[in-house]
Amino acid sequence: MQDETARRELGSEFLPRFDAAGLITAVAIDAVSGRLLMLAHMDAEALATTRETGLAHFHSRSRGRLWMKGESSGHVLRVIEIRVDCDQDAIELRVDAAGPACHTLATSCFYRRLTAAGTLERVDD
Amino acid sequence: MQDETARRELGSEFLPRFDAAGLITAVAIDAVSGRLLMLAHMDAEALATTRETGLAHFHSRSRGRLWMKGESSGHVLRVIEIRVDCDQDAIELRVDAAGPACHTLATSCFYRRLTAAGTLERVDD
Repeated sequence: MQDETARRELGSEFLPRFDAAGLITAVAIDAVSGRLLMLAHMDAEALATTRETGLAHFHSRSRGRLWMKGESSGHVLRVIEIRVDCDQDAIELRVDAAGPACHTLATSCFYRRLTAAGTLERVDD
Repeated sequence: MQDETARRELGSEFLPRFDAAGLITAVAIDAVSGRLLMLAHMDAEALATTRETGLAHFHSRSRGRLWMKGESSGHVLRVIEIRVDCDQDAIELRVDAAGPACHTLATSCFYRRLTAAGTLERVDD
């Protein structure tokens, strides 16, 4: 078990850990600005298709199907680099965004901050 | 339904969406460098405790309990700002890290990139 953990955390083998639903969390980061853009989920098919095409694909839990980010809007995410975290249950996509990452047309989906009063306030960065 | 979506996505009410297991995904970003540090999960208790203390708390799925990042290492994450994504099922913590964010002592948990050959390679940034 210790060996297995070390292998996963420190080795050079890509051993993505999908959860019970067959999904792994993926975070898209703008490769130039470093800004967190969006968070979504990938199944093995979405991960493989992303690697093959160089365009971010996810698994839509609500629609139950493979989904290319930007398939309807044209706001695709070109994947510059894929990183994995220590225990290989999360993926970082470093991307070149062809447009706003959020379906609301915000640059990032994380466009509101929580104030001390407990309400949300728009941020623009 | 449309009104509910608009309220959640464009409104000023904080309405975090916990999943069936009572969890919401949280991403920690270094407030200075902008670097993605780690990804973990929060339940309502972890989110409330993070807001109260200003230190990042998560819910450990493996240990089944509230966990303060840095409780044993001292590498706490001071929360500068909390942001939420469009549909409020993911949280961004903009943090000041007191030390390496990863338990492996890497600055970020995302310290390996996937090469074209399909193996992992250490990155240092």
